[in-house]
Amino acid sequence: MLKIAGIMSGTSLDGIDVAIIETDRFESSKVEIIDYFQKEYPAEIRERIDKMINNRHLDAGMVLEEVASLNLKLGELYAEAVRTASSKAGLQLSELDLIGCHGQTVFHKPGGSKTVSLQLGSGSVIAERTGVDTITNFRLKDIAAGGEGAPLVPLIDFLLYRSSHSHRFLVNIGGIANYTWLPADCNRRDVRGSDTGPGNMMIDAGVQLLTDGKSNYDKDGAIASQGELDQILYDRLFKHEFFDRAYPRSTGRYDFGRQYTEKMVKEAYARGVKDIDIIRTLTEFTASSLVESFQEELASEEMITLKKSDCLEVIISGGGSHNTTLLELIEKEISERFHNYRTDLISLADKDYSQYDIPAIDADQKEAVAFALLARESIMKRQGNLPSVTGAKNPVITGDLTPGDTADFE
Amino acid sequence: MLKIAGIMSGTSLDGIDVAIIETDRFESSKVEIIDYFQKEYPAEIRERIDKMINNRHLDAGMVLEEVASLNLKLGELYAEAVRTASSKAGLQLSELDLIGCHGQTVFHKPGGSKTVSLQLGSGSVIAERTGVDTITNFRLKDIAAGGEGAPLVPLIDFLLYRSSHSHRFLVNIGGIANYTWLPADCNRRDVRGSDTGPGNMMIDAGVQLLTDGKSNYDKDGAIASQGELDQILYDRLFKHEFFDRAYPRSTGRYDFGRQYTEKMVKEAYARGVKDIDIIRTLTEFTASSLVESFQEELASEEMITLKKSDCLEVIISGGGSHNTTLLELIEKEISERFHNYRTDLISLADKDYSQYDIPAIDADQKEAVAFALLARESIMKRQGNLPSVTGAKNPVITGDLTPGDTADFE
Repeated sequence: MLKIAGIMSGTSLDGIDVAIIETDRFESSKVEIIDYFQKEYPAEIRERIDKMINNRHLDAGMVLEEVASLNLKLGELYAEAVRTASSKAGLQLSELDLIGCHGQTVFHKPGGSKTVSLQLGSGSVIAERTGVDTITNFRLKDIAAGGEGAPLVPLIDFLLYRSSHSHRFLVNIGGIANYTWLPADCNRRDVRGSDTGPGNMMIDAGVQLLTDGKSNYDKDGAIASQGELDQILYDRLFKHEFFDRAYPRSTGRYDFGRQYTEKMVKEAYARGVKDIDIIRTLTEFTASSLVESFQEELASEEMITLKKSDCLEVIISGGGSHNTTLLELIEKEISERFHNYRTDLISLADKDYSQYDIPAIDADQKEAVAFALLARESIMKRQGNLPSVTGAKNPVITGDLTPGDTADFE
Repeated sequence: MLKIAGIMSGTSLDGIDVAIIETDRFESSKVEIIDYFQKEYPAEIRERIDKMINNRHLDAGMVLEEVASLNLKLGELYAEAVRTASSKAGLQLSELDLIGCHGQTVFHKPGGSKTVSLQLGSGSVIAERTGVDTITNFRLKDIAAGGEGAPLVPLIDFLLYRSSHSHRFLVNIGGIANYTWLPADCNRRDVRGSDTGPGNMMIDAGVQLLTDGKSNYDKDGAIASQGELDQILYDRLFKHEFFDRAYPRSTGRYDFGRQYTEKMVKEAYARGVKDIDIIRTLTEFTASSLVESFQEELASEEMITLKKSDCLEVIISGGGSHNTTLLELIEKEISERFHNYRTDLISLADKDYSQYDIPAIDADQKEAVAFALLARESIMKRQGNLPSVTGAKNPVITGDLTPGDTADFE
């Protein structure tokens, strides 16, 4: 059995997620989470990253030094987070077999075979501090093979959640939302995935704007639950150029970030739309764009014909799975659009999903677990990407291995 | 036996050096160079790197994208250079066991345990294009262990050039000059190394300034051979703050680059010093600062007392070994300062050094060979740094391994 620490830092700059798992060496779904640990970035580091990725540096000369310096500094923070998580789990660092660290994305520009991406968080620093073999840079090999280097989680969704009898959409609602489509009894080539549009990104930005920064997000969807849909804003949002792009689609801050949200919110505000109605509408838009993408995916499926007796399960993870109103809206949309089928919505934020035939991984833990397992696939020299999802020309072994061994001194 | 390609790109932005060597798996000095290949950077790439490292970007937002983009692009160029070198050597890429790629340094700020460094040239791209296991990022593990990440070549000097009966200074004259000190019959802990000051950097910049860019360097030292020493300029140059720093010293463009050279040249020019005398003086200064550093090294040696019967060999590589006048001046300085000892100056630019007990590696090939051997040390999990030289707290296994294997597709 292998003990692996997986580390994830998202584009929302929340900080560092570490999951320590136990699993075997095979492509199995046998995963036990020994410990899970979330740590915010220190304010100064968050500010430095934010300044870099949002181009708030006035001096171009500073940027290069910041890239070099943050690469090392983030390595220190990741190593420290692994140390804390191990200690919480009652493990010595020497009991860990492997670390898989996604790193902090500071630049990502998808563009098919012209995709450019940069993650920081030096594997050398992590391996030297922990003494554990460390895998980093998971995205670049897929990009070298002509893919967009993202998403990578669908491979792990395939390993953990494929079912012989249910069709499944695995949905992650982070800043943006994306799905992995796993038809019943699928193999790797059948897996599809796409971004669907904003996840929490527009709702969060809307709440921040309308509360003058007093609230950062709509806790449990409480604001949205009180509002009503504004049809003009809703229709306007669907006119975004993103929805004309071919599948699979990629999106990010450049599409649905603060700037765009501010423009949309201001237009609605100028028409006298109430705050709660704006947040309600952003939430409905998020839910609808998500479920609509399922419909488009199924329409494009040549291989799979859903039978009425089949079960269609939607399994939701990520921060958005805590937004009750958003989940209710998604459930309503699903039952309306797929009324011919048996459907089921499973939120990994609920702790009582044990009735389903899925591993015990909570909504917040899923991405960190995924990078632990991607590290396992890397050292076992198995593929770490799904060309059907990333657009790569071929499967690749992803990641760079920095050895954690100490060198003997003569 | 192992076939390894070593790739080096220096800070002078000359381009890409590739050496393909054959060696065994042990820490031996058995190295055969199968092929060696030099390739200039395409003008557009050279310009992009130069713009980045010399802070000529007006838009800070561009720098981050350039770092991400050049990391991938340089990987492509390195892979292409390996392909060309293999083809010249009559080898299939699949016959290569390993690639060691230093990458292009775009930022390096030495500062003891606060050193920051960044090399570009994605191992993922090289490994994907060539199908060969690739080691990159050689400097960061030493930095993580509290070292300056440089110099790394002294370990390879130790493996290839240590002698049971001769004391040796291995000198590389690139843009800056540095030495590795290998006392007779030394072990790893006895090795010392330091930068000595400018190598070709000030001579090149002086020639470029005085010829309005028509010449880039003093070919064979022809200009310096006609001039005479200007004592005022010579003394002025030795007042540089670098010469007050403690050993081992690090230097670079920030000390002896174009800006500083221009200032020194202009002062001399204003006093009516002739062009050829300025170049002569820069060359004498380069030679003197180099040999003076040998004297300081020997004075600081507590372990070694040179006996008059001992042979002191100075083995010179790098572009500066082609500058005949510089070499004559170094030889004269050595015989004056070490007149009590048997001394020998060996230029690896001469092709007839076969009388000496050293491997057949030419002056220009040495650094690329070094990174091939550092890659060997990395996969064999042996130390890749010398703490006595870099200042690291402990020896480390250097480098990140990107597997070249193709992933099987289900």
